[in-house]
Amino acid sequence: MSRFFDQRLAALAPYTPGEQPREARRWIKLNTNESPFPPAPGVAAVLATAADSLRLYPDPTCGALRQAAAARYRLSPQQVFAANGSDEVLAFCFRGLCPQGALFPDLTYGFYPVFCRMFGVRYQEVPLDDAFCVRPADYQGRAGTIFLANPNAPSGLALSLAQIETLLAQDRERLVVVDEAYVDFGAESALGLLARYDNLLVTQTFSKSRALAGGRLGLAFGSEALIADLERLKYSFNPYSVNRLTLLAGEAALQDEAYFRACCDAIMANRALAAEGLRGLGCRLTESLANFLLVAAPGLSGAAYQAALREAGILVRYFDQPRIRDYVRISIGSREEMLALLAATRQILERGNAHAAGKPGTHDE
Amino acid sequence: MSRFFDQRLAALAPYTPGEQPREARRWIKLNTNESPFPPAPGVAAVLATAADSLRLYPDPTCGALRQAAAARYRLSPQQVFAANGSDEVLAFCFRGLCPQGALFPDLTYGFYPVFCRMFGVRYQEVPLDDAFCVRPADYQGRAGTIFLANPNAPSGLALSLAQIETLLAQDRERLVVVDEAYVDFGAESALGLLARYDNLLVTQTFSKSRALAGGRLGLAFGSEALIADLERLKYSFNPYSVNRLTLLAGEAALQDEAYFRACCDAIMANRALAAEGLRGLGCRLTESLANFLLVAAPGLSGAAYQAALREAGILVRYFDQPRIRDYVRISIGSREEMLALLAATRQILERGNAHAAGKPGTHDE
Repeated sequence: MSRFFDQRLAALAPYTPGEQPREARRWIKLNTNESPFPPAPGVAAVLATAADSLRLYPDPTCGALRQAAAARYRLSPQQVFAANGSDEVLAFCFRGLCPQGALFPDLTYGFYPVFCRMFGVRYQEVPLDDAFCVRPADYQGRAGTIFLANPNAPSGLALSLAQIETLLAQDRERLVVVDEAYVDFGAESALGLLARYDNLLVTQTFSKSRALAGGRLGLAFGSEALIADLERLKYSFNPYSVNRLTLLAGEAALQDEAYFRACCDAIMANRALAAEGLRGLGCRLTESLANFLLVAAPGLSGAAYQAALREAGILVRYFDQPRIRDYVRISIGSREEMLALLAATRQILERGNAHAAGKPGTHDE
Repeated sequence: MSRFFDQRLAALAPYTPGEQPREARRWIKLNTNESPFPPAPGVAAVLATAADSLRLYPDPTCGALRQAAAARYRLSPQQVFAANGSDEVLAFCFRGLCPQGALFPDLTYGFYPVFCRMFGVRYQEVPLDDAFCVRPADYQGRAGTIFLANPNAPSGLALSLAQIETLLAQDRERLVVVDEAYVDFGAESALGLLARYDNLLVTQTFSKSRALAGGRLGLAFGSEALIADLERLKYSFNPYSVNRLTLLAGEAALQDEAYFRACCDAIMANRALAAEGLRGLGCRLTESLANFLLVAAPGLSGAAYQAALREAGILVRYFDQPRIRDYVRISIGSREEMLALLAATRQILERGNAHAAGKPGTHDE
């Protein structure tokens, strides 16, 4: 147990699942109430080769996947935790690793305060500055586990490693969770700081840079004690939360570094194309290092821009929050999708200008 | 919100995921930060046809699956809840539907007390009688949400519908959760009581009779208000907890009734074969209606019988709990596996007898 573990949960007595043997020997396996039959043929047709193995529970330790992730990131498997998306990883952090409450920016991943309410965790929102940046000095002397999405959402703005280290060094008895859902598109990962700071936990997801949002897989990286805490929580909630197919998919994704690199590079190139085009049309943008842009179109509210894009067949996200009402969040898609976005935005803005020129003093609905 | 919902959770403000359109129109979908690229080719090779769609989040409402389950069980989709295995369904019940604590038998699914500790729920264990049966009268006048595995684990013994109705009628302000993980192997489902009792919630799993333990899928059936409560909890924890592949697999499994029936029938036949054979060898068994047997071998502790079967290459489950130390739990496998179990048990018992005959007064280790 790490010193960050919520002592009110010290009595947790995790469920012990039946043994899931991994050695080559063929057991007659009668210990965990699985079916001896493969799933319905319709399932097999959908899932081709992996279908028959679905009759068996997945490996609750996620052993092979953790091994692959550890090799990729040069850590030990005991420093890696796997769960059902980084949402589940984060849920466990809020449930068990916030004995003194939580701290996070006022504009960030909208799930953080939801988790707090789910688990009765007190929290403080620390305002970003006027440019939507985190100021590490604002966290000096404050108690509670810090949650920082880096790059942050929905701004896409990233802290430098030096800034993260400042937060870690401010108080080594305070845990800092760095949520790196979007780190692979140009920001610096904090993984390198794990060797020197045991008050750091890094979370990542396969939903973005590894294109497995539909598979649900998230990881955490930290000290062996912190990872053991997370395992304890997972085993007290849903030990098999990562299914067999997702384990296979995650492993395969980790093993293809060239494809991963090529996808990230293409997204960064498409981001540059979209950002340049939108700026050329007069839009305001943050310097996003994520796979999305936060965009304010000239003369349009965020809601109006979202609605107009929707008319053009393009879905983007609008957040009805005071500080970002002028903005929409636009995911980075393919080059063709970015060109279509730029064309639609140009049309929307021209229509607005024509309208304004033809009927001075009137407003669009 | 149902009257069973924990009022301490009334302030839950669920996260609202970005829209996941289902209509046929092709959107340029830029609203939820998904990758425009398919996953690594290694993933595609593993998962064949469904792989490319994994870049997109799953439908968090599990709409098509709930529709299929509702049709199969003659309920409305609003009476059906889907989550990542029935463990996750149960976790949400313990988190949010136990404002006055929980009640369950002293011998039952071992996860119930784990959930209670995870979420700080007070609980009372109500002893089974000497034949491992639930006595409904023992629950009369007790407050707290009742959790009953039916058939129960590890006994395999089932309550009749009349007994479940007695529990429901004792106090209509008290919720009864009937965990029907093993119901498809000969017991009576309580689903038919939903029309008359809104204090009933039924949970089921795809891990047993539908052979999808590796896919992780569980359902709950109840009033629309109870199902809305569970949705609220799920959306405050992990809205996408059921992945795309599992949604497809679950739907396919529900649509093949003939295969489902044939598998359940074969398991019941194999259970009868195994039970008769074990009784013929002098073993004691409960009258299990589940896909497992609770078995005490003559002259052997449960631990010794487990160890001896393991030597023979057969894994079974032993629970180190006072009332069942003589027993092991044996899952029902194929006919061939059941014959191998009987042969191994016969050898173990003969060896024990030869030993006892040859060296009177001594004991095996």
